[in-house]
Amino acid sequence: MTQAQSGAQMYALAKRLWPICRSLTGDGVRQTLAIMQELLPTLMVHEVPSGTPAFDWQVPAEWRVRDAYIADLDGNRLVDFQQHNLHLVGYSTPIDAIMSREELEPHLYSLPHQPTAIPYVTSYYRQHWGFCLSQQQRDALPAGPFRVQIDSELFAGALSYGEWYLPGESQEEVLLSTYVCHPSMANNELSGPVVAVELARWLASAPRRLSYRLLLLPETIGSIVYLSRHLPQLQQRLKAGFVMTCMGDERTYSYLASRRGNTLADRVALHVLQHRDPHFQRYSFLQRGSDERQYCSPGVDLPVVSMMRSKYGTYPEYHTSLDNLSLITPAGLQGSLEMLQQAIGVLELDRYPQATVCCEPQLGKRGLYPTISTRESGYQVRTMMNLLAYADGQHSLLELAELLNQPFATLEALCCRLEAEGLLRSGDAPRTEPLRL
Amino acid sequence: MTQAQSGAQMYALAKRLWPICRSLTGDGVRQTLAIMQELLPTLMVHEVPSGTPAFDWQVPAEWRVRDAYIADLDGNRLVDFQQHNLHLVGYSTPIDAIMSREELEPHLYSLPHQPTAIPYVTSYYRQHWGFCLSQQQRDALPAGPFRVQIDSELFAGALSYGEWYLPGESQEEVLLSTYVCHPSMANNELSGPVVAVELARWLASAPRRLSYRLLLLPETIGSIVYLSRHLPQLQQRLKAGFVMTCMGDERTYSYLASRRGNTLADRVALHVLQHRDPHFQRYSFLQRGSDERQYCSPGVDLPVVSMMRSKYGTYPEYHTSLDNLSLITPAGLQGSLEMLQQAIGVLELDRYPQATVCCEPQLGKRGLYPTISTRESGYQVRTMMNLLAYADGQHSLLELAELLNQPFATLEALCCRLEAEGLLRSGDAPRTEPLRL
Amino acid sequence: MTQAQSGAQMYALAKRLWPICRSLTGDGVRQTLAIMQELLPTLMVHEVPSGTPAFDWQVPAEWRVRDAYIADLDGNRLVDFQQHNLHLVGYSTPIDAIMSREELEPHLYSLPHQPTAIPYVTSYYRQHWGFCLSQQQRDALPAGPFRVQIDSELFAGALSYGEWYLPGESQEEVLLSTYVCHPSMANNELSGPVVAVELARWLASAPRRLSYRLLLLPETIGSIVYLSRHLPQLQQRLKAGFVMTCMGDERTYSYLASRRGNTLADRVALHVLQHRDPHFQRYSFLQRGSDERQYCSPGVDLPVVSMMRSKYGTYPEYHTSLDNLSLITPAGLQGSLEMLQQAIGVLELDRYPQATVCCEPQLGKRGLYPTISTRESGYQVRTMMNLLAYADGQHSLLELAELLNQPFATLEALCCRLEAEGLLRSGDAPRTEPLRL
Repeated sequence: MTQAQSGAQMYALAKRLWPICRSLTGDGVRQTLAIMQELLPTLMVHEVPSGTPAFDWQVPAEWRVRDAYIADLDGNRLVDFQQHNLHLVGYSTPIDAIMSREELEPHLYSLPHQPTAIPYVTSYYRQHWGFCLSQQQRDALPAGPFRVQIDSELFAGALSYGEWYLPGESQEEVLLSTYVCHPSMANNELSGPVVAVELARWLASAPRRLSYRLLLLPETIGSIVYLSRHLPQLQQRLKAGFVMTCMGDERTYSYLASRRGNTLADRVALHVLQHRDPHFQRYSFLQRGSDERQYCSPGVDLPVVSMMRSKYGTYPEYHTSLDNLSLITPAGLQGSLEMLQQAIGVLELDRYPQATVCCEPQLGKRGLYPTISTRESGYQVRTMMNLLAYADGQHSLLELAELLNQPFATLEALCCRLEAEGLLRSGDAPRTEPLRL
Repeated sequence: MTQAQSGAQMYALAKRLWPICRSLTGDGVRQTLAIMQELLPTLMVHEVPSGTPAFDWQVPAEWRVRDAYIADLDGNRLVDFQQHNLHLVGYSTPIDAIMSREELEPHLYSLPHQPTAIPYVTSYYRQHWGFCLSQQQRDALPAGPFRVQIDSELFAGALSYGEWYLPGESQEEVLLSTYVCHPSMANNELSGPVVAVELARWLASAPRRLSYRLLLLPETIGSIVYLSRHLPQLQQRLKAGFVMTCMGDERTYSYLASRRGNTLADRVALHVLQHRDPHFQRYSFLQRGSDERQYCSPGVDLPVVSMMRSKYGTYPEYHTSLDNLSLITPAGLQGSLEMLQQAIGVLELDRYPQATVCCEPQLGKRGLYPTISTRESGYQVRTMMNLLAYADGQHSLLELAELLNQPFATLEALCCRLEAEGLLRSGDAPRTEPLRL
Repeated sequence: MTQAQSGAQMYALAKRLWPICRSLTGDGVRQTLAIMQELLPTLMVHEVPSGTPAFDWQVPAEWRVRDAYIADLDGNRLVDFQQHNLHLVGYSTPIDAIMSREELEPHLYSLPHQPTAIPYVTSYYRQHWGFCLSQQQRDALPAGPFRVQIDSELFAGALSYGEWYLPGESQEEVLLSTYVCHPSMANNELSGPVVAVELARWLASAPRRLSYRLLLLPETIGSIVYLSRHLPQLQQRLKAGFVMTCMGDERTYSYLASRRGNTLADRVALHVLQHRDPHFQRYSFLQRGSDERQYCSPGVDLPVVSMMRSKYGTYPEYHTSLDNLSLITPAGLQGSLEMLQQAIGVLELDRYPQATVCCEPQLGKRGLYPTISTRESGYQVRTMMNLLAYADGQHSLLELAELLNQPFATLEALCCRLEAEGLLRSGDAPRTEPLRL
């Protein structure tokens, strides 16, 4: 599949998922996961009953909404959930009432400085109802009174999440975690799920050394629930993890560190981004806001970072109706896919090469010197000599790539060639004994 | 007591101590300590006989001076110790002679570039006599001859020093060390003793965890004598120590590092000063000049730093008659008092908090989220979440305060609240085992 | 011997060695080593037969050349090896032929951008012949045909190298390594050998603590052959090593790091150069190009750095006939000699001083305070006090010299004086136990 094809495919999936009204729980999540199962047949959907304890939390009530609107007394719908999912505050309690403008006002949410944007508002843990509308709509509302109708339910149901596991040669695993709780918004968050699905299909297309686990969760409560059930296993097996969020626009690349800041996930992400775009944005764990909050919490301490395009909270369309399908592009999604593919390439292929001969080897007799000398071939020989000169069995290819300021893939290809020539021999861990050749 | 009151009280004590002629030894020191005993009844005064060995040194002879002047032959006093203590070189030997201007000259000390200042000169370890005077006075001296009279004595007496000990719950102790050997000078050095006395009274006003030891010493020989008698105990018990010197003016705050530079005393001092005044002066141990020279010497190696206002040697009035009571202020002294109180606050309250639940706790159900959201309350919640997110039992509150760029007291207050809620549990030392919750 | 004398002597030796046609092997190397034996009678010359294996390499055939030229058909020599050694490509195979300009062209080497320079070209490991000439000469060549004559031989002979060993009190040794394979070029490389010989004579002139080993090698293959025979002994005994190359001009000083970058050799070289010339050039191991490539290769891992004037590859005359005796000077060579002498001074004299008394000692009673106080003497006393204040037995004199920003020799002289006074006691290694005095 060409780059253009996979970009277009991801964009098409985003378009298909767009209209569904997702929330923490409910049928919108189930419909979303069902569509993903078409593409990932082994995707499992788990249902966790409302009230189930999860560390300091409980699975909340399930939310169902059939209709919601503000109308005038002639029945003309002025703000209509059927028109846009964002018009209704998430987890709104039911209401059917006639009220004055004054009574309605505390339940309206708009953005005076972004007059065309409908804001995204939820009230998961405080019983509340409300409508979101653009400032222009709000200004145009008549004097009232209004008919306010929310045909919703909060009931003992379940929280749904998806889990897809791809076993590799080793039980050591890579975690990919993204969100299925955002209603019609694109960068945050249809981009994460659609890139994740494409990445999973790519992973499944060939055997790999490591195992992979993809989680499609409602944010916060989803990862807390998952961790409450599987933490010891994750702590034992996890090599590195990536929160996949805000992956659809083309403005920049971003990395948000783990709490410790120096895990393998951090080092891999930093290396990949430095070579992908030297101007990428680097955020500290102090600027966290996604599920790394749970994965990196004290006592959980998993090596998880976020890899993004424009980070949540940093772009003007964030958490409004302006974060729509025109904000994300096939190329934007494709860049994110490749970023993760490169990170996985490092995790799959990193190793500790060591030279098998003392002193520089004679490259000439092995045909490793180019017969025609060009600037390019000279540069490649220099990199090959550098790899040999630093391959002391105590530095990984990733460390050498950093030291030699080379993309991992370039160095790894040279390493393969030198291993084939018998000039390097690689191990899974640093040598502890001084080399005796 | 309000800030203004304690500042005024310290200033008043400085004024009362001002006229006394202090030196390494002698009745001036004893009078000074006696006045301090009025305020600190448990202050003990120790007398160490002249000739007592102390490491590489010996306690010097005691110095007594009754009168000293240079007069013309008509008996008019031209330079008169009764007018200012600084007119006489400290430890001057006795003389009663008539001499020419030429004979007198090598015994006169003035500062051509500070023509109104009387310099401060001593000759503790070389037998010598001399007079200090302003350049203006010197220029106005008649042609001579002169009557030179110093009615002094160097005799086998004692060195006096004060020691005040406040026991706490723990034998671990904090050392506070300052000087009682400077004659009429204010910043260097009535400020250190008067702040020390006020600090001691504050310490004694409530029970505390740590023990406190205040030393009122003649500089250099005093700390050497003290260390020669008590070093093993100090090495066993000392948690942190502070040399209190030059604490009276308002121009700046200063810190001078210990030799190792990274002791607890260093880290506490740096933290307190960063938040008190980001423009504070930072000096290396290479710029030392006070009793940290002894406390940090090889083989002694105590965790001691200096906390100051304008450091000795850096301000124009230093070691002259211009370092007088107009240089120091109640507010200057008060700032130094608070700086030490804050440092002691850190030493008393630092601990290693660890989260008691995996993942973020639900603050809402505990009422820890503000009901009315303001910029201030949002900021506080963010800091609280950060504290929870980093509380892994391996970083102390002081380290977390540095990491989160918060004053220690702010974080400590949040820590208390979260401990009360059961969300944090704190220990005295970093966890060595991974947390299993 | 004065500085001017030793500079002149080194320059004279360079002049004497200049005309000899050196290469990887052959009589030019043997003549060069024979002249050096006149100055270093204990210099041993080793002969290693062609074909002898050395790690990944084999000793190449020996090369002998009697004559070589390009002539017109009248016998006029147009390019003549007798005129300049560089005219013949090193290791050229024999030929005796008449050929057209077109046939000749692929065997000619010149530098269009340096039209007066004859380049230096070799073909050690690919059978080839060629002539080097200035671009001006090349442009002036007639149309042809040409008589091309190279009276050379490649035969089973030997590789020759020199080794000089000076035993000291300890078997711990210092390696000095330089090249004898460069034909008539001056900075790279007659400067290294002539400075090395002078340094060896200086070393032999007085007893020293360490042992010294000087290697006079053909580059690359020479060090590979040597290491293949002596690696375990070097790994056991080597304290520090220096590649001596490009030591003759006056433009700058340069240092090229070992692979690890923090060996004793690195720290010594950096210290010496910082005080010799704060503007010295600092190169990473990534910019390597001399025998540190072998000494620092994985599995060899010796603490070896290069100390140079203008580094190979960085100056315009490099590897051309312009790198001649006018590029190097007696003063340039002398500076390099002193640089190595200073480095050896540190290696010989470094130690771990510790104070023998607690607290500052009383310098006055020992006459260590100057009786007449000047700015200079005050500075010296300050440095002496600093040495005493930091001499905790855990930092070497070299580390203290860095910390106090003093030349090693200054600090070492003060250390001797304080040892003589009994105020310092020095050990060969850092103290592992806390000092108890």
